[in-house]
Amino acid sequence: MYDLIIIGSGPAGLSAAVYARRAGLDLLVIEKGAMSGGQVLTTYEVDNYLGLPGMNGYDLGVKFREHADRMGAEFLEAEVISVKEAGGETSAELIACHRGGDRIYRIVTEKGEYETKAVLAATGAVHAKLGVPGEEELAGMGVSYCATCDGAFFRNRTVAVVGGGDVAAEDAVFLARTCKKVYLIHRRDELRAAKILQERVSELANVEILWNTVVDEISGEGQVEKIKTRNVVSGETKEMELDGIFIAVGIHPNTELFENLVDCDQKGYIVAGEDGATNLPGIFAAGDVRTKPLRQIVTAVADGANAIAGIQEYFLQ
Amino acid sequence: MYDLIIIGSGPAGLSAAVYARRAGLDLLVIEKGAMSGGQVLTTYEVDNYLGLPGMNGYDLGVKFREHADRMGAEFLEAEVISVKEAGGETSAELIACHRGGDRIYRIVTEKGEYETKAVLAATGAVHAKLGVPGEEELAGMGVSYCATCDGAFFRNRTVAVVGGGDVAAEDAVFLARTCKKVYLIHRRDELRAAKILQERVSELANVEILWNTVVDEISGEGQVEKIKTRNVVSGETKEMELDGIFIAVGIHPNTELFENLVDCDQKGYIVAGEDGATNLPGIFAAGDVRTKPLRQIVTAVADGANAIAGIQEYFLQ
Repeated sequence: MYDLIIIGSGPAGLSAAVYARRAGLDLLVIEKGAMSGGQVLTTYEVDNYLGLPGMNGYDLGVKFREHADRMGAEFLEAEVISVKEAGGETSAELIACHRGGDRIYRIVTEKGEYETKAVLAATGAVHAKLGVPGEEELAGMGVSYCATCDGAFFRNRTVAVVGGGDVAAEDAVFLARTCKKVYLIHRRDELRAAKILQERVSELANVEILWNTVVDEISGEGQVEKIKTRNVVSGETKEMELDGIFIAVGIHPNTELFENLVDCDQKGYIVAGEDGATNLPGIFAAGDVRTKPLRQIVTAVADGANAIAGIQEYFLQ
Repeated sequence: MYDLIIIGSGPAGLSAAVYARRAGLDLLVIEKGAMSGGQVLTTYEVDNYLGLPGMNGYDLGVKFREHADRMGAEFLEAEVISVKEAGGETSAELIACHRGGDRIYRIVTEKGEYETKAVLAATGAVHAKLGVPGEEELAGMGVSYCATCDGAFFRNRTVAVVGGGDVAAEDAVFLARTCKKVYLIHRRDELRAAKILQERVSELANVEILWNTVVDEISGEGQVEKIKTRNVVSGETKEMELDGIFIAVGIHPNTELFENLVDCDQKGYIVAGEDGATNLPGIFAAGDVRTKPLRQIVTAVADGANAIAGIQEYFLQ
């Protein structure tokens, strides 16, 4: 019986492990891959985690894991099959139960079952891909899924943003501040983004919207150099030279294990405040998987700390 | 005219400076002391900021500042005298104004006046002191103001917590999990802490409450070794050997510049959510000074990032 099982070993899960160990909790971190670090691992450069400028993402992931190891956190590499309350099955039943630290959850994995008093969902999110040639090969080398994270590397350069929603429009405005030229590439003839964002985009002299356009290929030698686009109405294809491409076509939180257990919002994120508490006592969420204003490494790390404080408070109830 | 003036150069202010520079904002950080880093500077050891285990607080503060410097943040060492809207004086007037990015604030300092479109309050908080001999000399060497931060350094040791409120009781419960023995020292004959916390404290075999007791002196050679206590009813004095003393007698947010401008809660914290927005458009808060569940270095650093995202959204309105 553990005090806490953390599912996921990205920045949120690892920070939670550090805080939990320091608080004397018995805990198990279950990770599905052979490496901890989550999305950080595949990030080319991280330059905004205060105190560690200019870090290679892989090295930062390793540093994060080493910190958790140093605190004596126990890790298990396994796929989690289900999370349920020992004795209860549906969310409604569980919530009807009296709140308190005597609740027990059972985590079923391919390698065995584990019981715990609290569960932290730190399962992260994945960015939707375009699925075109060159995208995977050049990820982190000019292909990015996060303008806030990587925009600063493209100062005075030419970039494209792909997408038509709020995030794509916000990314275009954000990038226009520092980039020489920003193409906003959208497959339809109007943006889905909020009106005010559309206005801001249209006001910017260095943003050009390419309507009815899709990206068919990204290419370059070790760094993005050009893309092939196609107008879906006229069928016309073009080659464009640019330095970076930001793909903002959606993000999918990894909530499969929890979506029938706790409340999620309409985008699929687990509804949880700063303290990580969900609507189900004993189930907490931290990092990209929860509803929050900004998904960054440091906000995930902070979530891990906040969730452990929330869990300790839960144990006091 | 700046896009943003950040007041305070602790973890929240420095992280905000990094994010703001990367977003291409023109900004000025105003700090009152000669060194950046805030409370981190005077922390003996920081072991829970993910990726940088076992850091000396002073060194961590220097690393944080170097990161902001590397991004090209501009710093001014000056005491801020007032923050007001150019053209408006009272909070009510300001809120009555139409919301939007055309609002201008004036920051008056001893070294001159500066205009800015947005202001980030990152002024931090100070822990109330006992004001007894040895307290200042042994700060960070067994005298601590934060059990979450420093409790793990006292595993299997004997410590005291001074105070009678929620924080003192929570600290006692937290420390009891890893320490051999915890004395809870309170000057009155009952705790102010919530009933449930009082119950939890009383259930713990290794927590002993010393009622009607104050600490008169803390002493030791380079590390806390003992304290002198006095019973305020009987007048009896005692000497106790211990390894650490956690002082939980209050925390005061540094809100003097803002308390007549924005809403503060009853404890004096600036009311602001995760995105840092206060009730006054253009004034944001980050770090220990705002209402939040957990005051830690990493949550302050995350606040800095969140506030810059919030400020960028404000500029889009």
